[in-house]
Amino acid sequence: LKLVRVDVEKLLFDQDAGVSALVLKEQGGERRLPVWIGHAEALAIAAVIEEMEFSRPMTHDLLKNVIEQLGARMEWVRVHDVVEGTFLGLIGLTGTAGKVEIDARPSDAIALALRVKAPVFVNDTLFEPADPQTGVQLPTAGDTAPDEDFLANLPDEIFGKYKQ
Amino acid sequence: LKLVRVDVEKLLFDQDAGVSALVLKEQGGERRLPVWIGHAEALAIAAVIEEMEFSRPMTHDLLKNVIEQLGARMEWVRVHDVVEGTFLGLIGLTGTAGKVEIDARPSDAIALALRVKAPVFVNDTLFEPADPQTGVQLPTAGDTAPDEDFLANLPDEIFGKYKQ
Repeated sequence: LKLVRVDVEKLLFDQDAGVSALVLKEQGGERRLPVWIGHAEALAIAAVIEEMEFSRPMTHDLLKNVIEQLGARMEWVRVHDVVEGTFLGLIGLTGTAGKVEIDARPSDAIALALRVKAPVFVNDTLFEPADPQTGVQLPTAGDTAPDEDFLANLPDEIFGKYKQ
Repeated sequence: LKLVRVDVEKLLFDQDAGVSALVLKEQGGERRLPVWIGHAEALAIAAVIEEMEFSRPMTHDLLKNVIEQLGARMEWVRVHDVVEGTFLGLIGLTGTAGKVEIDARPSDAIALALRVKAPVFVNDTLFEPADPQTGVQLPTAGDTAPDEDFLANLPDEIFGKYKQ
């Protein structure tokens, strides 16, 4: 398992379509991993990137607070595999009783990682080349199984419709 | 602080309007506490009530797994106060280093409590009587500040439009 550290390069979402994409880019390279994610998780990621302030803790803030209040620390996120169109993630925590690894959707894991500045890693084999015709990379998999009808009917210019 | 144990009596939501209400009812009594909540949190609560199965952990499942993997246990949820139209919640955890209380929105707290069968309590002073004209209780506050225009223009028959 060769792990490559990535940054969140872009978050693209369309409130009307209810579909969002997260683009991870390798540090020191040009490869990208686009992932379809849910709208709620996209908002949880956008809240950190846009430095939104809320009067009450949002769900991923609660998750962060629970980890910290239990005396634990988030060490890393890994996007380690893809199974039947779904990317699998793991979060690594160090608690008072030692290290634990917990299964998570990449979107939840990254929404949390951004809040505690934990590094995000992607399995080297998961990066996909851009479409040679368009140079555009579309997500090929998501957190959960994507809607096949939706994916089959994606227009070529889909990314142009999205606001960053 | 007199705490009254409650059950989730109803969850009402309208995907189009993007607004949801959670109705808590006291055990052994007839008083109710309706709370406006976000759509994502309503889905997280509905997932437990409707026993929906997902191939991947949803956000509140991750929260449950984090608590358990860190060797902690969720003991209770309290909805203890209302400030400027927003209900405040607390979750009580017992971790390896002792008990902690963590600030949370009631919706997140209850979505989590239902997953681990933890009891939910409401501060006795927060219950509101039903409207004497209609017998209907509308939420008077939410997890976060409600949209005032929306609330001001609610039709009387709003609850009839909602699916349970």
